[in-house]
Amino acid sequence: MTLRLYDLAGAEPDRRFSPYCWRIRLALAHKNLPVETVPWRFTEKAEIAPSGQESVPVLVDGNRWIGDSWKIAHYLEETYPDLPSLFGGPIGRRLTTYYSNLADSLVSAIFPFVALDILHHVDERDRAYFRASREERAGSTLEAFTADRDKRLPSFRASLRPLRLTLSAQPFFGGEHPLYADYAVFGPFQWARCISDFALLDNGDPIKVWRDRLLDCFGGLARAAPAYGV
Amino acid sequence: MTLRLYDLAGAEPDRRFSPYCWRIRLALAHKNLPVETVPWRFTEKAEIAPSGQESVPVLVDGNRWIGDSWKIAHYLEETYPDLPSLFGGPIGRRLTTYYSNLADSLVSAIFPFVALDILHHVDERDRAYFRASREERAGSTLEAFTADRDKRLPSFRASLRPLRLTLSAQPFFGGEHPLYADYAVFGPFQWARCISDFALLDNGDPIKVWRDRLLDCFGGLARAAPAYGV
Repeated sequence: MTLRLYDLAGAEPDRRFSPYCWRIRLALAHKNLPVETVPWRFTEKAEIAPSGQESVPVLVDGNRWIGDSWKIAHYLEETYPDLPSLFGGPIGRRLTTYYSNLADSLVSAIFPFVALDILHHVDERDRAYFRASREERAGSTLEAFTADRDKRLPSFRASLRPLRLTLSAQPFFGGEHPLYADYAVFGPFQWARCISDFALLDNGDPIKVWRDRLLDCFGGLARAAPAYGV
Repeated sequence: MTLRLYDLAGAEPDRRFSPYCWRIRLALAHKNLPVETVPWRFTEKAEIAPSGQESVPVLVDGNRWIGDSWKIAHYLEETYPDLPSLFGGPIGRRLTTYYSNLADSLVSAIFPFVALDILHHVDERDRAYFRASREERAGSTLEAFTADRDKRLPSFRASLRPLRLTLSAQPFFGGEHPLYADYAVFGPFQWARCISDFALLDNGDPIKVWRDRLLDCFGGLARAAPAYGV
């Protein structure tokens, strides 16, 4: 049976921009699992209530509802052990926990650069909710965040140094082939390019070269999504 | 034949405080490889010249000289494949590259907190060299660095969030047992506690709990070293 994935969408139903959903899109492709994605908006919490979660990704596999990207990744690995491994074994799985947390922290670090761009893309029904919830969380207006983003860019880029050095030494975090560690960290960068024309990464940055490598994986799955050419 | 490790020492020969050497001390213990450590000072570059390196750790195994902690870790894994693996297999090894780079960046992040404390501990022969080389690299005096460390502490601690979340979820980066990923990241924290009474980590911080767990490994090898009780 085809899996179903609730996937955050903007005003355009095919503008999919959740950093957490992108991890799972690539994880499903890694496991060769066909999936039907359902465009979902921030305010459609009732639709995913059976998962016990208030946000996406939510995966539906038969009568099972699974929320939270890290839990979904484990679910896929345990439920489909004969399909290509997302972690490369039990030790790889434990070593990947940090990558998942690192990816979450990248979402927080990138948010101030793209906050206003997200607002421009969210569905009209979501706009007031998005602004109010994010401004409350940040203690700042979305406009104030974005205003000085050029000034903050160099220190953001400098903070990516360990990623950069690693991706200068090998094609993927997982080695010659990508693993869930790659998909997790890719999520925030794909989120940014789906929603914003702001150039977070310099051309020639090994992180961007790696990102582009992931855009080409699985027949260009992530590259085919509506996005900006940055 | 017992291996020999050139190990950075302070004015007291048993004050060993290199974050890079500590990684290898624990890696050698992980592989149950006996080692004779040789106290080495910054200015004794001639002693390690056969390694082609100007800094420690330098490992001597028979007639082979190997420098650079990451290269030494690979050397140990390749040369002693039947002893306990530092990486948990080829994929674990690739996933560990990032941890090694992260550990290097932690050295840079922690340096401004302990710079002056290092100066107080280095051997008299090293003192002028240490001050001049570090101040040139930093573009600041060691005193200026350390002066506002209390003010900078909260943002340093906040930057450790992905480490903290990971170590709240599992005992070690490698899972139930430590791997080289743990030893690499442990290095900078052990360096700090060997040289400084400044409390980088809060009591109760899962990172500190993990650090203390590593202090107890291998019969308390790292705990037995001269250090401060922070």
